[in-house]
Amino acid sequence: MDTIATPAPPTLNGKHSGDMKKQSNTEYLPRQSGGDLLKEDDSLLRNALFATLRHHHPKLAAKLDVIFALSSAWSLTESDSDFQLLESRLSDLDPAELILISSAFSQLLNLHNLSEEVTQAQHERAVRMGEIEQSTRSTNRSFKKLISMNNISPTEIYNTICNQTVDLVFTAHPTQALRQSLLKKYATIRNHVERLHNSRMSPYEKLECLEAIRSEVAASWRTDEIRRQKPTPQGEMRQGLGYFHETICPALPLFYRRIDTALKQIGQPMLPLDHNLFNFGSWMGGDRDGNPFVTPETTRDVVITARLAAVNLYFSAIEKLMFELSIWRCNGELMELAKKIHDKQSADPYGLAEERKRKNFWEFYGIIPLTEPFRLVLSEVRDRLWHTREILHHCLVHPSLPLKGTLDNDPRAYATKQELLAPLMVLYRSLCETQDAAIANGRLLDTIRQMQCFGLAMMTLDVRQESSRHSDAMSAITDYLGLGSYNDWPEEKRVEWLLSELTGKRPLMPPALATSPEVADVINTFKVCAELPPDSLGAYVISMARAASDVLAVVLLQRECGVRDYMRVAPLFETLDDLSNSEAQMSSLLSNPWYKAHIKGEQECMIGYSDSGKDAGRLAAAWGLYEVQEKLVKVAEKEGVKLTLFHGRGGTVGRGGGPTHLAVLSQPPGTIQGALRVTIQGETMEQQFGEKEVCFRTLDLYTSAVLEASLNPAATPKQEYRDAMAEMSQISCEAYRKVVRGDERFVDYFGAATPVSELGRMNIGSRPAKRKNKPTIDTLRAIPWIFAWTQTRFNLPVWLGMGDAFIAMEKQGKLELLQEMYQQWPFFSVTLDMVEMVFAKSDPRVAQFYEVSLVDKELWSLGDELRQKFRDTKSILLKVVRHSGLLQSANTSMLQQKLALRTPYVTPLNLLQVLCLKAVREMEKGGDAPDKYANYSPENDETDQLLKRDPNAQRQPYKAAVEDTMILTMKGISAGMQNTG
Amino acid sequence: MDTIATPAPPTLNGKHSGDMKKQSNTEYLPRQSGGDLLKEDDSLLRNALFATLRHHHPKLAAKLDVIFALSSAWSLTESDSDFQLLESRLSDLDPAELILISSAFSQLLNLHNLSEEVTQAQHERAVRMGEIEQSTRSTNRSFKKLISMNNISPTEIYNTICNQTVDLVFTAHPTQALRQSLLKKYATIRNHVERLHNSRMSPYEKLECLEAIRSEVAASWRTDEIRRQKPTPQGEMRQGLGYFHETICPALPLFYRRIDTALKQIGQPMLPLDHNLFNFGSWMGGDRDGNPFVTPETTRDVVITARLAAVNLYFSAIEKLMFELSIWRCNGELMELAKKIHDKQSADPYGLAEERKRKNFWEFYGIIPLTEPFRLVLSEVRDRLWHTREILHHCLVHPSLPLKGTLDNDPRAYATKQELLAPLMVLYRSLCETQDAAIANGRLLDTIRQMQCFGLAMMTLDVRQESSRHSDAMSAITDYLGLGSYNDWPEEKRVEWLLSELTGKRPLMPPALATSPEVADVINTFKVCAELPPDSLGAYVISMARAASDVLAVVLLQRECGVRDYMRVAPLFETLDDLSNSEAQMSSLLSNPWYKAHIKGEQECMIGYSDSGKDAGRLAAAWGLYEVQEKLVKVAEKEGVKLTLFHGRGGTVGRGGGPTHLAVLSQPPGTIQGALRVTIQGETMEQQFGEKEVCFRTLDLYTSAVLEASLNPAATPKQEYRDAMAEMSQISCEAYRKVVRGDERFVDYFGAATPVSELGRMNIGSRPAKRKNKPTIDTLRAIPWIFAWTQTRFNLPVWLGMGDAFIAMEKQGKLELLQEMYQQWPFFSVTLDMVEMVFAKSDPRVAQFYEVSLVDKELWSLGDELRQKFRDTKSILLKVVRHSGLLQSANTSMLQQKLALRTPYVTPLNLLQVLCLKAVREMEKGGDAPDKYANYSPENDETDQLLKRDPNAQRQPYKAAVEDTMILTMKGISAGMQNTG
Repeated sequence: MDTIATPAPPTLNGKHSGDMKKQSNTEYLPRQSGGDLLKEDDSLLRNALFATLRHHHPKLAAKLDVIFALSSAWSLTESDSDFQLLESRLSDLDPAELILISSAFSQLLNLHNLSEEVTQAQHERAVRMGEIEQSTRSTNRSFKKLISMNNISPTEIYNTICNQTVDLVFTAHPTQALRQSLLKKYATIRNHVERLHNSRMSPYEKLECLEAIRSEVAASWRTDEIRRQKPTPQGEMRQGLGYFHETICPALPLFYRRIDTALKQIGQPMLPLDHNLFNFGSWMGGDRDGNPFVTPETTRDVVITARLAAVNLYFSAIEKLMFELSIWRCNGELMELAKKIHDKQSADPYGLAEERKRKNFWEFYGIIPLTEPFRLVLSEVRDRLWHTREILHHCLVHPSLPLKGTLDNDPRAYATKQELLAPLMVLYRSLCETQDAAIANGRLLDTIRQMQCFGLAMMTLDVRQESSRHSDAMSAITDYLGLGSYNDWPEEKRVEWLLSELTGKRPLMPPALATSPEVADVINTFKVCAELPPDSLGAYVISMARAASDVLAVVLLQRECGVRDYMRVAPLFETLDDLSNSEAQMSSLLSNPWYKAHIKGEQECMIGYSDSGKDAGRLAAAWGLYEVQEKLVKVAEKEGVKLTLFHGRGGTVGRGGGPTHLAVLSQPPGTIQGALRVTIQGETMEQQFGEKEVCFRTLDLYTSAVLEASLNPAATPKQEYRDAMAEMSQISCEAYRKVVRGDERFVDYFGAATPVSELGRMNIGSRPAKRKNKPTIDTLRAIPWIFAWTQTRFNLPVWLGMGDAFIAMEKQGKLELLQEMYQQWPFFSVTLDMVEMVFAKSDPRVAQFYEVSLVDKELWSLGDELRQKFRDTKSILLKVVRHSGLLQSANTSMLQQKLALRTPYVTPLNLLQVLCLKAVREMEKGGDAPDKYANYSPENDETDQLLKRDPNAQRQPYKAAVEDTMILTMKGISAGMQNTG
Repeated sequence: MDTIATPAPPTLNGKHSGDMKKQSNTEYLPRQSGGDLLKEDDSLLRNALFATLRHHHPKLAAKLDVIFALSSAWSLTESDSDFQLLESRLSDLDPAELILISSAFSQLLNLHNLSEEVTQAQHERAVRMGEIEQSTRSTNRSFKKLISMNNISPTEIYNTICNQTVDLVFTAHPTQALRQSLLKKYATIRNHVERLHNSRMSPYEKLECLEAIRSEVAASWRTDEIRRQKPTPQGEMRQGLGYFHETICPALPLFYRRIDTALKQIGQPMLPLDHNLFNFGSWMGGDRDGNPFVTPETTRDVVITARLAAVNLYFSAIEKLMFELSIWRCNGELMELAKKIHDKQSADPYGLAEERKRKNFWEFYGIIPLTEPFRLVLSEVRDRLWHTREILHHCLVHPSLPLKGTLDNDPRAYATKQELLAPLMVLYRSLCETQDAAIANGRLLDTIRQMQCFGLAMMTLDVRQESSRHSDAMSAITDYLGLGSYNDWPEEKRVEWLLSELTGKRPLMPPALATSPEVADVINTFKVCAELPPDSLGAYVISMARAASDVLAVVLLQRECGVRDYMRVAPLFETLDDLSNSEAQMSSLLSNPWYKAHIKGEQECMIGYSDSGKDAGRLAAAWGLYEVQEKLVKVAEKEGVKLTLFHGRGGTVGRGGGPTHLAVLSQPPGTIQGALRVTIQGETMEQQFGEKEVCFRTLDLYTSAVLEASLNPAATPKQEYRDAMAEMSQISCEAYRKVVRGDERFVDYFGAATPVSELGRMNIGSRPAKRKNKPTIDTLRAIPWIFAWTQTRFNLPVWLGMGDAFIAMEKQGKLELLQEMYQQWPFFSVTLDMVEMVFAKSDPRVAQFYEVSLVDKELWSLGDELRQKFRDTKSILLKVVRHSGLLQSANTSMLQQKLALRTPYVTPLNLLQVLCLKAVREMEKGGDAPDKYANYSPENDETDQLLKRDPNAQRQPYKAAVEDTMILTMKGISAGMQNTG
């Protein structure tokens, strides 16, 4: 209010009017509460574990304390003296302590992750209780955002969401390191910790809750973390079904309810009852690619098991509804149906005896009077569900019975979901007509929605097989028929021949075909599919698909084996070469008039991430895929075919995992028109569906991500972005291969500086590990390749080659362009954010420690080069994303904290792993245990049992200790490296 | 501090030292919070019902408002103008409104009772959270009390509690008026209301919770309250099992845990694992006294059903244990057992096929390795449980299979609980040896305790039959064998003959005995018992037992029908005459050497309350029973036999119900030595076991009541108390009979002034209502007799005759003595407190209203006399108990409030009942509907359905409305009259 004058010294009792200069704004402490909550739970669970340790091994607990304090101090000060102190403390542990210490750190990491989940769930809850600003993404939010910022009308939103569906396909989890039993325990611990936060307890209850936590932690401490034998496909399947039973099925109707509320708030009606926002699929028991344990029987078993789970779900829902709908008021339509059922139940002759047999229903076994029409109808539904269950049991026990036929021919069994839904819709309409909507929209609505979504199949099963197995099958046939050998035919002749057979009517399959077991397996799989109900089957995925004939061969094989409801065939192009000429193959396929008619204008294509990354480096692979998707979509549009892209997303970041919504909107614009199909792999299953709150949020994320991708797609990338990407892919690919294939020191370095050759021992997944000699890049799968480098916290496959590309661009003065690409192009920013996160979790000093201890000297030069590349790539990356330091942008500081909390747990595991690798490799070179433990024998029978926990291997104690520790460190480190939501 | 001087007026600036007179203490507001909580829930549920009413019938809701306001005003001011206003408002309701209004009040009462339960549960909870002083009775308290006040050492307490057992026997609930479905709904509403109180909810969850409450209230409003057909014994049984499944089984281990904690705090060890504080029995499906629907098959069915429930309980407990006990550490004993099981599972030949058949276990179907010994053992237990369940199913479906034999001869089925417990004890001992007690005392301990208590039978079934049916059976035999007719023999000859047969070895039962269906039923019941496992059977109760021969006849019949494990025989002496010479009969029985050896020094005797009350009035009956118990105990002691008294306690106060601990300590001292057996009737089941908190408290009450009765029994009553009681019984009995039998106006008055002759229509309980002509006192059972007078809120059977006795004593100047008896003698005080409570719930003006409207004039004089007796009895009672007003003592003011809250709901129901009785009786006198509703027809199809809710009766609409309303008022009034805990 008064003029700006020159500054004068402040006086004591200043008499003339004072003046003040504009002062710069000050810094504010950042506001965060999740972090505190995280620390709170973290320390609760940590204390619980320490209490157990002190109870069982007091001396050890004290050692653990100092190791932990030193590890924390080191990650803060990074002084070498702390590091050596830490190393010396670890190297004079005796064998039993090795196991116990590594197990302690591994469990501490699991407990830590668990408290991250709890914090996450609390964060979700807090969001929904609105204690903090709504999180960035939720359907509710995006409604408002789309309306207010993009001027999309509410009705348009309604119509879009009414036509959008997300397919989530659960695959077996190859890297799910935690044993089922530990998973259960952690789930119980998690629930107790949440009860601590959420409900008001009496001191007794609080004490019981703390006791329950302590007793679970004590039990998990006593549980062998190492999985000693391989899980079976059925086993995996049951685990998957556990998620449905415990979180997905209850959470789904709740989620629909929230969507209805959100729609109501923008003045729209509730979702139509017959629309599914989600479909659930599975590969468990259907994916036989390189997994001989998946046999035709397996496939049949898992289908029946899934149907059993569905019938059980509805059976208990119907029983509850029978109690709730005890009302007398109904409309005409229901009265008519009730009368029909009543007459049938009272009239038919062998009633009473049958009646007897059904005896072990708890309630309502008498004939229900017409004055309770709802119960009358429901009792009929219950009887038929019970009967359907009997039939399914029967088929499970007698593998020769054709499932579909048995179900269809039995008038009392439910074969399709429409049969099951019809009576319930009658009830629903009746309640609405008699002004009893309040009752209708309770449990009845929830049940109807579950039936709509899960149907009688619970989830659809995909079948996956490698293309060459079909060609071998065709060759067996053509050889037998003397038509020559199919495998030797060029592509055109195959297509021409296949089409002639497909358009013709003549049977091809000779009855007495002598086949090899591999071919028999292929043919029997198709025969089994022919006998399964179509609503239990999803897509037939051809892995390593190369050409159009691969697809046609499968269609032909389906016809020849009696599949009447054809399964849609989805080719999976995996290698860079197959990807690059997938466009040609798809267009020749879709342009074929017969095929176009056959697919009724819909084609599904799967694109895989992992192997191309191993082959050409991350950048080239990602870009390759990006382009392929666009081309395939264009091909489909040209042919007037609706293409659904099926994304196989890996679990860990290395294999293209990472947060969902970022994954969705980093797809090329326009490739997602209201339909998305993705796989849910490995531990993402546990993370995204392990707990109801988080499951709720997952559904929320997918819905809003797809909604936004449809209603306001990101802009298509400018031409100069593409040129830059093409050039960078080409440079990074060369640089990547120059190291991985060009440098002959690499293979030896890789074998020595990482635990790649010791990985086989972890028993992860039902697929057998290949047992060839020294692992070379070509021979090993994408998973071990990435896993090995994650263990040493170097994560080479993620960034190798990327630096060269960026530096090359900078030299051409295109740094500005890259920065703009990061700002404007979601695909580029998502890719780089992921790489940045990997850098934040990497620590080259740890990798160097592996090198110094395990690699012989003349290969160290390669290490120095690689670490130099690491630093160059990091600094150029930071320039491109314009962050002063790793994860320094506003919305990732929380993330950095979480990572910082884990490092003190992970570092000791790395040091222990190095010790064990050294020991294991010496023993393999025929050296025996170091004299200090040459004749080590457990001093009491507890450690004796500790060292004999592997039922099918007799190992001398020192060896057992070292090997178990090694496996424990691998689990611990991977638990520490998993990225957080 | 300064001297006491004479008082002077207070001055303004008082200069000399001031002085103050001692002042009387002032009154403090009473501190109570339960009441507020009660009002809060009461209004929440009331608003929910009103909201539903306003939604469906807005006009009606407004009428209900005014009726309710008038009813509240009347119960406050008691002015006649309000009463007439209320009456006129009710009498011009049309038939549909009659039903809806009465249904509304009835539901309001149920909701009110429900919020009393919630308040009760909250009170319990608050007690355990200790927010208010611990309640007066809990085991925890009595430990401290016994130690600190009666100087009983902790070890003595420990030894007593280790030898004390309480048997709770659930009988069918004859008066359980609420339909199962409404019960379920109220239970759901109750849980939601509690969630509102106990857990921290997000606004969404709170809203969903309120919606769920509203939707349940809406559904219960739409549910027909009237039970249209009779429940079956199996139905009752399933309901009973519902309580086990939902509250008793989970609450029991929790309760043991609390006892352990309490014992720990007085420095005692935890309870031994093999001691049962409780045994649970049942009459459901075993009580065939006057219930022809209970057939031998029924008995077999309920036994199997109960065993199925037990196996299911353990099956899911074992499955959970298999997840939790995934630990490798164990002791030698367990390792040995695990090895045996492992060899068996791996070795036996028909493994795999069998393996397949067991396929639908969710988890763990493979062979479990030896490194998980706990799971290995548990998987074996699970397999055998599964097999046991199959066997039971099989027996249920094939009634001809002998259950016991089938179970015993099957090596894989569990026949006794020891078989089931053995392996679990091995697990428990192993965990304790390896310092893993924290794990052992988790779920494993709970499961072991459930198995100890519920065994494989879940509960033991008593069989009850009337003595004359056995005599008829014996006559059929003696006639057939030409030994003469048993029924005509005098008692001595019967006993002498029976003993000769019992001591002899000759079979008595001729194979081809021609019998009447009644005799056949008796014999077949024994044959069925012979085939049931003994741990599923409890006592054989002989109702209307008269002489020793009744008992011997049953023993003989057991032998003749092949019962090898004899059921203990408990005679039930019911009428006053049988009671008075029960002592002679029991001593002649117990003095018989053969019988004494047969019962191995233990005899059980049941004493019933209800019929003697009807016969001689409450006071005489109670005293009669008191003396009989003492005599029977003395007879038993003389014979060196341990006598267990089995108390059949009625539900409503009228039939000797009322709070437990008072019931226990009002027994003659010394008749309870650490063992108590009581029946849990009717709605006490719902009240005492309907909800976990309250169930917990029930177990707590019984334990502490019995503990105290054993460790510090009340003093035995002084001789002058007995003489006074004997004299009063004799006077009250005469006065009671003079009215009930002596006054020939009474029968007509009773029939007209109460709804006794309309009771038959309520379909309560599976026992058929006797259908004779005009009901006289002799012909009708105790239940309707009492129920009829409760409806008119006169409760004559409770107090009639008592006044005369007290006034007679007062005239002899023994009022002092009575007052002392009330202060010092629990038996007397409990009896009078109960009568006082009944007076508090009585309202003679309402009863008079019945008289004026329904009884013709010249009988009114009897009414005036009875009401005069009512007032005299009330005032003399208040003098004896020295209360200025009803329920005016310190710890019942809360109770008075609760009653006051209900009266405004009950009064309109009384007025409505009078209207309906008038209408119903006119129509029965051939009069048709009053012209106003002569051709009343429902104006829309909703009321049309409303009036047609009785499936098996075609009634013209006015009749239907009046009859349904009448039944609804009966339910509502009885809901309003039930006494609160």
